[in-house]
Amino acid sequence: MSTTTLSPIEVPPQVPSRRAFLRTGALSALAAGTLVACAKAPEAQTVKATAPSDSDHGGGTMAPHPAAVTATAKAEEMDRLHEAGIKAFPAKTEGKGNVLFEPRMEGNVKCYDLECSVLQWETEPGKRVTAWAYNGQVPGPQIRVKEGDRVRVKVTNRLEESTAVHFHGLELPNDQDGVPFITQPPIKPGETFTYDFTVPMGNHGSHMYHSHHNAAKQVGLGLLGAIIVAPRRPAAIERCDVDHVMILNDGMHGYTLNGKGFPATEPIVAKLGQKVRIRFMNEGMMIHPMHLHGMHMTVIAKDGWMQPAPWKCDTLNVAPGERWDVIVNCNNPGTWAFHCHILPHAESDHGMFGMVTALVVQK
Amino acid sequence: MSTTTLSPIEVPPQVPSRRAFLRTGALSALAAGTLVACAKAPEAQTVKATAPSDSDHGGGTMAPHPAAVTATAKAEEMDRLHEAGIKAFPAKTEGKGNVLFEPRMEGNVKCYDLECSVLQWETEPGKRVTAWAYNGQVPGPQIRVKEGDRVRVKVTNRLEESTAVHFHGLELPNDQDGVPFITQPPIKPGETFTYDFTVPMGNHGSHMYHSHHNAAKQVGLGLLGAIIVAPRRPAAIERCDVDHVMILNDGMHGYTLNGKGFPATEPIVAKLGQKVRIRFMNEGMMIHPMHLHGMHMTVIAKDGWMQPAPWKCDTLNVAPGERWDVIVNCNNPGTWAFHCHILPHAESDHGMFGMVTALVVQK
Amino acid sequence: MSTTTLSPIEVPPQVPSRRAFLRTGALSALAAGTLVACAKAPEAQTVKATAPSDSDHGGGTMAPHPAAVTATAKAEEMDRLHEAGIKAFPAKTEGKGNVLFEPRMEGNVKCYDLECSVLQWETEPGKRVTAWAYNGQVPGPQIRVKEGDRVRVKVTNRLEESTAVHFHGLELPNDQDGVPFITQPPIKPGETFTYDFTVPMGNHGSHMYHSHHNAAKQVGLGLLGAIIVAPRRPAAIERCDVDHVMILNDGMHGYTLNGKGFPATEPIVAKLGQKVRIRFMNEGMMIHPMHLHGMHMTVIAKDGWMQPAPWKCDTLNVAPGERWDVIVNCNNPGTWAFHCHILPHAESDHGMFGMVTALVVQK
Repeated sequence: MSTTTLSPIEVPPQVPSRRAFLRTGALSALAAGTLVACAKAPEAQTVKATAPSDSDHGGGTMAPHPAAVTATAKAEEMDRLHEAGIKAFPAKTEGKGNVLFEPRMEGNVKCYDLECSVLQWETEPGKRVTAWAYNGQVPGPQIRVKEGDRVRVKVTNRLEESTAVHFHGLELPNDQDGVPFITQPPIKPGETFTYDFTVPMGNHGSHMYHSHHNAAKQVGLGLLGAIIVAPRRPAAIERCDVDHVMILNDGMHGYTLNGKGFPATEPIVAKLGQKVRIRFMNEGMMIHPMHLHGMHMTVIAKDGWMQPAPWKCDTLNVAPGERWDVIVNCNNPGTWAFHCHILPHAESDHGMFGMVTALVVQK
Repeated sequence: MSTTTLSPIEVPPQVPSRRAFLRTGALSALAAGTLVACAKAPEAQTVKATAPSDSDHGGGTMAPHPAAVTATAKAEEMDRLHEAGIKAFPAKTEGKGNVLFEPRMEGNVKCYDLECSVLQWETEPGKRVTAWAYNGQVPGPQIRVKEGDRVRVKVTNRLEESTAVHFHGLELPNDQDGVPFITQPPIKPGETFTYDFTVPMGNHGSHMYHSHHNAAKQVGLGLLGAIIVAPRRPAAIERCDVDHVMILNDGMHGYTLNGKGFPATEPIVAKLGQKVRIRFMNEGMMIHPMHLHGMHMTVIAKDGWMQPAPWKCDTLNVAPGERWDVIVNCNNPGTWAFHCHILPHAESDHGMFGMVTALVVQK
Repeated sequence: MSTTTLSPIEVPPQVPSRRAFLRTGALSALAAGTLVACAKAPEAQTVKATAPSDSDHGGGTMAPHPAAVTATAKAEEMDRLHEAGIKAFPAKTEGKGNVLFEPRMEGNVKCYDLECSVLQWETEPGKRVTAWAYNGQVPGPQIRVKEGDRVRVKVTNRLEESTAVHFHGLELPNDQDGVPFITQPPIKPGETFTYDFTVPMGNHGSHMYHSHHNAAKQVGLGLLGAIIVAPRRPAAIERCDVDHVMILNDGMHGYTLNGKGFPATEPIVAKLGQKVRIRFMNEGMMIHPMHLHGMHMTVIAKDGWMQPAPWKCDTLNVAPGERWDVIVNCNNPGTWAFHCHILPHAESDHGMFGMVTALVVQK
């Protein structure tokens, strides 16, 4: 079981005989014989062009109707933008979130230091947004512990407003629950607060940590991360070769997977015959029905709890606050689109964007 | 097993003693004795009417308070609009989508020719929208094949921009997946592309085909349809008398079921004791929790995959890209409302509209 | 099994050494030595303050950077508002909805009189909205019957427009279904209509009654309530100590639980070791994924129908028209936040609001 490693994805087939945009577009009219005489008077071209039958009567090469020319040019430009997006994938951006967080051991206690601060975060090439982040990452670093582990999380607040951390899905003692004025005072700017708990037995699975103070804003700006609790004895169905956390988000940073929008999202890479576990987590404000091409997903857990009977789907609706774990049996080689099926979260006439990635099954 | 046939639905009971709108409304004031003397001076009427106690002291027939008159008139008008909508159901419109597509056999290959073109589509009486359609239908023609079938789908693009067809739910070889620049070049205007594949064994159920290029726009405009894969050996629970595909949509064409809004939606008709299978498919951008009156639904499949244990409900939340199959045991005679329970998708003060139809159980 | 009773909830820990807002805010600049000389010239203060390095070179007490002062003041004010909201919980408001409705017995018939009228409804302290209500309550009074019961519901319409009542989830004879012009005439202003039916055997569970005429408006304004059908023989898993109906709503009255927004929502109170059944019902237009802190929920029923196998979660997505029944085993003492995880439905920089309550587990 390992976290995903980046590897070159399979190259999509080339578009055969694609005419260059410029030739097809603005210049094709000039290339058409009947319009050559007008080359010095572009305004006249347009006039002529709106009445193609006038210039056609002499026979010979027909000029395309200008409306068609424009439409073709637009179609070519759209294709060019779509292709450029795909070719750029996976695009490099500054910063990487959801990086595995190695604990500092103090005796048998796994210690994690989280610092909340403001930074600029590049969600896709050239698009920088203001983020409130744990340890400079959006999502925050990925915490992986085991049920029964003793854990200490020291939170230092370098923000301009108070905060607090809720371990969403963990059934902790009340004073570790992270809700200001109900279970603790808020962690004020400059202050530090330490959570100290034992992960309950049986409480394994895919959980999250995030701010629970002014949370619509603070989580929206990036104060969120995954906390994965491994079971002492994994079920047979949980065995996998690739274990991928996919945190869905929307709102202030746009539509993102693990803090990045397509083409800066990270592909999931597996070898033919391997099993991939995907841990969907929704930290946004909208549902995101995630659709995998080419292979189905077997749903094994909800909010960390094993489903009584696994079930299959190719589109899994993930609501805010939910976590769903699925297993994909990678039996179909190729590069498979993997995206939110609310299409405006995934594609525009400028190409794919936002909540799109790929599952690459290598032969 | 047959697709639904239109048949006259049961007539709702008449409204007893409904006073005509006009009499109740504008004219009722004139009929009221105390206001007769003012008939020649309508301005005065209003003045008088705002002080009913002035005109009441003489006793006799009381005039209704004008605010009440207006309210009553508005209430009557609202009822009239609601009734008119119901009475018009199922209203005729030009064009019908989701029509069973008979294949052309080439040897043992089932061949389907799809042509993409632009047209005007009537979603409800008098409401025409621009549609991008397969074979002039929204949704496109309903393809029904069997697992193991060899299938050929020839797509001709008569649009002004490129397109491609993705068979959503089918686990095909990568080069048949229909994602431009990842699995194939886009099908440019005027071009033809042929998909040629064998439907994998085990991959039966309710699937969809739709554009996967500039899809937020192209699917939104109508480039979508159902592809149903029959199993070689249907499970006992799948047996049904009526097999109905219900494609949910929102966005550019309004709220529609199979391309039409109420009252132009198609009722589902069954005889008492029959079993109806409904295959919900969401091609829109929003969830639609579909609510059936009078009888519950037994959920048997998700995205084509049989659920490990069927479960019952009366309201089924269908998210974009999802397909859910249910069985209704028609044991309750009558005309039953069947609608999205996001009420603004189904009713306004002008009556029911959009995602409303009926399941008619005939004795 | 009883409905929830209000009881004092556990007091959250005090914030230690919280500096008063005013001192920290506007007055702290004046208290800082280096700025005292400027006290008579506030404009100059500002100028000085924007260049703190000028006034720092003499050493001594440093004045905080005014931007920091402002940020701190804003942070303190935000905390103050958050704390005030929590401290006010459960806040008193006028009117209480969802109150258990004792039937009037006529022989063996359980009779309920519902009167629809317009009123002002206080959703949170000081916030009054126009409501259309059954018996002056939003939600309407909670009806509890048993499967096989004979029930009579007399509806009197004191509104300015027609209405009708649909028993959502009950499988009644068609003429009791409450859909104007399909199953009955609308109930006009001033009119009375009586529904008279026997609750079908097997049709137990969590159901709803609401307007089915101009329903986007009428339900949105409050014409809704719960009708709970007890089974003759409850399943073992249904046994509980506290039985709580939680009706989710959004739209015209804001985000509410049982007609109230936080801090006027009602806490659910149980003793350690007790079992709480929560019956979620969504009468709004949006999904609401309800998240319970500290303990998981075991999902036992959907739309009244027992799930074939119970399953666990901590965040349950409830769509419009759906009902979900869960059991919480109260094994973790404390006051636990319980809220919609679409964070803008639950918290703003003014504190928690809307769809927030608490499950209080008392030792």
